[in-house]
Amino acid sequence: MEIALRELAELVGGRLTGDPELLIRGAGTLRDVRTGEITLVDKAKLAPQLAASSAAAAVVCEGFEPAGLPHITVANVHAAFAVIVRRFRPAAPSMGSGVSPLANVHPTAKIGANVAVGAGATIGAGVEIGDGSVVHAGARILAGCRLGRDVTIFPNAVLYEDTRVGNRVIIHANSVIGAYGFGYETTQGRHRLSAQVGYVELGDDVEVGACSTIDRGTYGATSVGEGTKIDNQVMIAHNCRIGRHNLLCSHVGIAGSATTGDYVVLAGQVGVRDHVNIGDRVVVGAQSGIMCDLPSDAHYLGSPAIPERDEIRIVAARAKLLEIRRQIKALERVVEEMQHGSLGPADKHQDAA
Amino acid sequence: MEIALRELAELVGGRLTGDPELLIRGAGTLRDVRTGEITLVDKAKLAPQLAASSAAAAVVCEGFEPAGLPHITVANVHAAFAVIVRRFRPAAPSMGSGVSPLANVHPTAKIGANVAVGAGATIGAGVEIGDGSVVHAGARILAGCRLGRDVTIFPNAVLYEDTRVGNRVIIHANSVIGAYGFGYETTQGRHRLSAQVGYVELGDDVEVGACSTIDRGTYGATSVGEGTKIDNQVMIAHNCRIGRHNLLCSHVGIAGSATTGDYVVLAGQVGVRDHVNIGDRVVVGAQSGIMCDLPSDAHYLGSPAIPERDEIRIVAARAKLLEIRRQIKALERVVEEMQHGSLGPADKHQDAA
Amino acid sequence: MEIALRELAELVGGRLTGDPELLIRGAGTLRDVRTGEITLVDKAKLAPQLAASSAAAAVVCEGFEPAGLPHITVANVHAAFAVIVRRFRPAAPSMGSGVSPLANVHPTAKIGANVAVGAGATIGAGVEIGDGSVVHAGARILAGCRLGRDVTIFPNAVLYEDTRVGNRVIIHANSVIGAYGFGYETTQGRHRLSAQVGYVELGDDVEVGACSTIDRGTYGATSVGEGTKIDNQVMIAHNCRIGRHNLLCSHVGIAGSATTGDYVVLAGQVGVRDHVNIGDRVVVGAQSGIMCDLPSDAHYLGSPAIPERDEIRIVAARAKLLEIRRQIKALERVVEEMQHGSLGPADKHQDAA
Repeated sequence: MEIALRELAELVGGRLTGDPELLIRGAGTLRDVRTGEITLVDKAKLAPQLAASSAAAAVVCEGFEPAGLPHITVANVHAAFAVIVRRFRPAAPSMGSGVSPLANVHPTAKIGANVAVGAGATIGAGVEIGDGSVVHAGARILAGCRLGRDVTIFPNAVLYEDTRVGNRVIIHANSVIGAYGFGYETTQGRHRLSAQVGYVELGDDVEVGACSTIDRGTYGATSVGEGTKIDNQVMIAHNCRIGRHNLLCSHVGIAGSATTGDYVVLAGQVGVRDHVNIGDRVVVGAQSGIMCDLPSDAHYLGSPAIPERDEIRIVAARAKLLEIRRQIKALERVVEEMQHGSLGPADKHQDAA
Repeated sequence: MEIALRELAELVGGRLTGDPELLIRGAGTLRDVRTGEITLVDKAKLAPQLAASSAAAAVVCEGFEPAGLPHITVANVHAAFAVIVRRFRPAAPSMGSGVSPLANVHPTAKIGANVAVGAGATIGAGVEIGDGSVVHAGARILAGCRLGRDVTIFPNAVLYEDTRVGNRVIIHANSVIGAYGFGYETTQGRHRLSAQVGYVELGDDVEVGACSTIDRGTYGATSVGEGTKIDNQVMIAHNCRIGRHNLLCSHVGIAGSATTGDYVVLAGQVGVRDHVNIGDRVVVGAQSGIMCDLPSDAHYLGSPAIPERDEIRIVAARAKLLEIRRQIKALERVVEEMQHGSLGPADKHQDAA
Repeated sequence: MEIALRELAELVGGRLTGDPELLIRGAGTLRDVRTGEITLVDKAKLAPQLAASSAAAAVVCEGFEPAGLPHITVANVHAAFAVIVRRFRPAAPSMGSGVSPLANVHPTAKIGANVAVGAGATIGAGVEIGDGSVVHAGARILAGCRLGRDVTIFPNAVLYEDTRVGNRVIIHANSVIGAYGFGYETTQGRHRLSAQVGYVELGDDVEVGACSTIDRGTYGATSVGEGTKIDNQVMIAHNCRIGRHNLLCSHVGIAGSATTGDYVVLAGQVGVRDHVNIGDRVVVGAQSGIMCDLPSDAHYLGSPAIPERDEIRIVAARAKLLEIRRQIKALERVVEEMQHGSLGPADKHQDAA
């Protein structure tokens, strides 16, 4: 497929500089762009990479003028480039609207307007689904769940009983919301499951990646605040209270009854101990282990996690451990020799000789 | 909804102290309880938290008498409180019994009495399911699996061929039992999958969380002993032998052919190397990496994991690494000066001056 | 079931030494073999374990002759033993071929010859599936996906729109290919999802374990090279380029836009930072955290990962930290005393006394 640069500029409402009839063959990022394709540059400092690339043209932001390269200037480079990518590789058809006759919808469920339910999806007794929501094939919305408006549940995701889901929430494929909490009482050598009468509550605009799990509360809610985004394979245990606008990266695990404030960021593979409280705007580096409460507005790192600056210094010092051992050995030798008189002040010239 | 305290006391067979006609609006834990609600206190030392809460009443254990607060005294606080929570927020209807006409059950499968199979579930050829078991919607029980009595398989869980499941086992949504082991032989630059003729065997009362995976053995069983509880997102590799009554927390990964004894506890994100043997009653702290056999009856921590007490001391010493480097520098300076005669015994007063 | 050793030897085309009429009751590995069963020995150095086992016979490789034990000599011990295991415990029936009338196949999908599609599977609009492929029950192949020949998609796996899958690829149950990348732009306190117009591309002979996730690229492909094997619960983020013939073990997490060369091995629970590049034939030890580019042909370990040999030395030195502190204290004491004249050269005999 070849499309004139002029057409692409019109498509995104951009200002064209260069030959409007130049034919473009595709669209790729600076890393991937091939001869004849258009790319994007969202920061002026990428000019050298652009010059070194095979791009035939570029989508650029106001104020950046790549000399000698045809370009389309726009206000939002990423939005414009996404439109251009879709012009070359149109979106696959969506699943369509309406409740599939092959879905298994309980007669007591209340389905809003313009809701789509895919073939083989399960909508349990008493479930409520708000207008404009989409439940893909094979998703299981068990009895008593309440979903807001414009929610998307991707294929094979499972919402256990009584899960409460805010507006515009996205839950990706094969995630599980509301399974039993991992709480046991051990009596006479046997682990007995604790009460499981709670549920999960997700605020508006929460997004949950694929294969993530959020367990129900023991008696009440495990809750995730408005606007929080959760990556794939994240685990949030029973009774946790996750704040608003958090970013929880892949493989993060948060143990029971822990809480986070607002705008918390946990990088990949971070672990949080049970009952720990994390303050607002805390940022924790990858693979850290949070063993105690973390005050607000700070960066932490390490396992156990401490202030990031301290951990970075300790990591640097740790890398010197072999040198430290040598230094100590050298000191011991010198001191030993000084004690034995061979290296006292009077002997230093002999030593140097 | 408002319910008289008297009714709640009768519901749980408890002894009421205080106004029987007091109207209660809901039930919440000490952390969550709101005005007009009832809470629970399972340890006398929580008295200050109770006093500071908004609770209108409490469920308490024998021997704890919160002065001035209406309360219901019971033998098992948690069981009673769960009943009260359910009185305010009744359980969603269960999936019902019987084999759904929308389930896909192979004619050679043997289904016990009082078994429920949900819509869209798959029961393969030759599968046997014991009395009272429940297979939820979308679960896939492939050919040759044998399930005991009173087993629960939650939605979209997958049991590969020939999986053997004991009585009262619970497998949560989207877990996968019996996928191929990650074993390859590399010849001429290509990785060739090893034999996959084994299976998985789960003992009685095993519970498996959501999105966990247990791979089949190469030739025989990967086995999990009776009473062992497995959290979400746990990985147990091919040929492992997990003992009885273990607790394996979220994101634990156990590599091929490793074994654990009985009553082992692995905290979150622990990794176990292949072919390692862990003794009875071993407890391993979060994020530890187990690289060699661990003797019984001890606590371990760290990566590589060592006895917990040693690791705790080393972590404390590690936190002093900057101080250690300063101490060494100071020592070097002093020794150097002593060697050059400026800080020998005769000079100490000058130094102090 | 009892089978004469002669029949087993004929079954695998092996050379029999010992009583051909010996009846064998089953097959088990050296760890598991019971009285009356046959085992396998793939290395001569396992002779002591064989002698200590209860095995009645063994499958052995050329050149290894267990004295006094009936044995079958073959060229490929593992292939032969797998056949014998299957003789005692036949494979469960496969799902059969053909498209199930209970599958939900879009009329525009193009299904090759000898393709099997299970009950309750979803094949979206415009999907293409090559000859000989198998899509198990409950798998969701969304619109626009293209699968090569002899591909296997296990139950409940989900392929989002436009996923491209090479020949002979295996994707295990409940894995998710092509979910949204975890990329957000934060403006005015709200995280806004980045463009999601890319897709995932898996090369020939790629294998993906259970509950693993590979996110789509932002604008183009997240790609996995030919022959790469991915274990369970692995996370590969958006825009990654994974090389050929990698081995990525369980719980590995690779952040956005990272790349790996060919024949890279990442052990369990390794984390890779975004935009990091890993060279060919790099091997990284378990639980390591890769924070910067890693040159080719080397082993790395630790978090942050450094050359393996260095990390091993530092770990050993770290274990001596308490000793290091004691040594420093001792040195300080000695030096202090030397400064005060009590331990100078003149005093050494008194000290020794």
